[in-house]
Amino acid sequence: MIEDKTPQRTSIAQLGEFGLIDHLTKNFEITQPSTLKGIGDDAAVLDFKEKKVVVSTDLLIEGVHFDLAYMPLKHLGYKSVVVNVSDICAMNARPTQITVSIAVSNRFPLEALEELYEGIAHAAQEYKVDVIGGDTTSSQKGLIISITALGEADENEIVYRNGAKQTDLLVVTGDIGAAYMGLQVLEREKQVFQVNPNSQPDLDAYTYLIERQLKPEARKDVRTLLHALEIKPTSMIDISDGLSSEIMHLCKQSGVGCNLYEDKLPIDPQFINVCEEFNIDSTTVAINGGEDYELLFTIAMEDFEKIKGNPNFSIIGHMTQESEGIHLVTRANTKIPLKARGWDAISE
Amino acid sequence: MIEDKTPQRTSIAQLGEFGLIDHLTKNFEITQPSTLKGIGDDAAVLDFKEKKVVVSTDLLIEGVHFDLAYMPLKHLGYKSVVVNVSDICAMNARPTQITVSIAVSNRFPLEALEELYEGIAHAAQEYKVDVIGGDTTSSQKGLIISITALGEADENEIVYRNGAKQTDLLVVTGDIGAAYMGLQVLEREKQVFQVNPNSQPDLDAYTYLIERQLKPEARKDVRTLLHALEIKPTSMIDISDGLSSEIMHLCKQSGVGCNLYEDKLPIDPQFINVCEEFNIDSTTVAINGGEDYELLFTIAMEDFEKIKGNPNFSIIGHMTQESEGIHLVTRANTKIPLKARGWDAISE
Repeated sequence: MIEDKTPQRTSIAQLGEFGLIDHLTKNFEITQPSTLKGIGDDAAVLDFKEKKVVVSTDLLIEGVHFDLAYMPLKHLGYKSVVVNVSDICAMNARPTQITVSIAVSNRFPLEALEELYEGIAHAAQEYKVDVIGGDTTSSQKGLIISITALGEADENEIVYRNGAKQTDLLVVTGDIGAAYMGLQVLEREKQVFQVNPNSQPDLDAYTYLIERQLKPEARKDVRTLLHALEIKPTSMIDISDGLSSEIMHLCKQSGVGCNLYEDKLPIDPQFINVCEEFNIDSTTVAINGGEDYELLFTIAMEDFEKIKGNPNFSIIGHMTQESEGIHLVTRANTKIPLKARGWDAISE
Repeated sequence: MIEDKTPQRTSIAQLGEFGLIDHLTKNFEITQPSTLKGIGDDAAVLDFKEKKVVVSTDLLIEGVHFDLAYMPLKHLGYKSVVVNVSDICAMNARPTQITVSIAVSNRFPLEALEELYEGIAHAAQEYKVDVIGGDTTSSQKGLIISITALGEADENEIVYRNGAKQTDLLVVTGDIGAAYMGLQVLEREKQVFQVNPNSQPDLDAYTYLIERQLKPEARKDVRTLLHALEIKPTSMIDISDGLSSEIMHLCKQSGVGCNLYEDKLPIDPQFINVCEEFNIDSTTVAINGGEDYELLFTIAMEDFEKIKGNPNFSIIGHMTQESEGIHLVTRANTKIPLKARGWDAISE
């Protein structure tokens, strides 16, 4: 299923730790004015002037967060950056720098790490973040990636999770659920491949879903879009852990309740088809799936006219008094208490 | 050799990821004025005002960087913070915040993680750094700790690796080599314990060495000491990877050579005794050992009088023209080219 892209195998040990870092990072360029000193000293030096600094960090572990059987290393490098940049975007801030640390077992040749860093470099370029530091070491098992992302914003631009008001509208960007079904398709193909390594999978019907899983993008455009619409969200969060669990976070931290409308959930036609094919309820996946690097936010009711009909945004519900609780209003107009179950829910 | 400190075992899975983070971080207090928002949103928010920001990151892997057979979890937590804070100190900056990410296999009960975080909290308090974020996940094997440290400094205070001049003096803080020999003692006791679990080791003769290995401290005091002496180093680096390899870094990045004097190396009497006991050459260990979280820096010759005789600092050499190379001048007054060999060198 994956082609052997490493006909040449150079042992990492040949380079040594410092040689390895130098080799992997030699093409990284510094583009942010806030980066005074990047890789090459005990620490990087940054100057954010009057801006506030936003910091987030994520750890990605082989066998837990990704499976190299269907995740090409270049895509993995790209996605690792996206995952972190998404958290910065969820603060309504502008991503500026990342540090990248990796630990690898000796089964990885240098060429594999080069691919990984190619993906990292590509994402860094796409999202205009400088790679300013990191650490490279050996692991006992598998590949481990730890990224810390920094961003900047004016103080009055930053949006927290705790600002949602009782009558606010609940809005989500893009569409949801596709990344989860992309993973299901890949898992199925992996099993087919294990039984018959000569099978040629036809994945045309799944391209969008697979791309959402293997090459997600962070919504760095949302900050600009909202700014142009003159909307400042009252609260915001990224929905990588699944819509329902993130709604629970917003509600808990803001002290409000919520009604989420099933018929308003933005889902892709390909997603619906594949849910039918897998015989899974599409709403369950849409609200619990996760790994859609979209943003969830609340806006004041007065901003309704500004956002209505905008193809980038879907109004999926509204906030309520805390005592009313958090509910999904189904197509049949039944109110079901929402549970933050995440991925586990779907496989039950 | 280590007592069982986890008679009570609570499975991590019972808490879930968010419950786990909440539980482990609930006692962390925010003390830095630059921390506007710590744990609890997509990202932390910081305000460094006119200060420059210094960022460093390290990844610690069980079986590679530490061995839980003799490293108590509380000490490991403490040391993980120290390792990162040391890099901030090596920029002549003041550590202010850290993010802490951990991945653990399910063999770790909650009580083990509580111990780890107790050590982290203790170090955070000692070094006055706020824990502002992190990630908690499962690993396929062992314990993985990833810490990113931030610090602040005025622009003119920051000291890089590349500012050493040809006639500068080379200075090191504290003493060197002890951490490496502490590790040798612990490794030996581990082997004894494996053969005879009932043996009661008498480690009195090794307390200093073991403490240097298990509970090192970062030299956050050096910034204050130098400030009081009105000395600004021309270059600085932390020597966690071993004195010789760090001297090579300073020389390479500053474009100078160096003479290091064997008879000036600051070593502890206990260290000398144990080197004799192990039949290892003390100079070889002192210059290649590593894990001494001391600082190495260069100062202008004019500053000699200010630092002479100060018990915190040892003048161990002087810089030269680049073309003269990098040498160790032995007690017998022989010049030997210095090699950046790190730990491997000793076991050869």
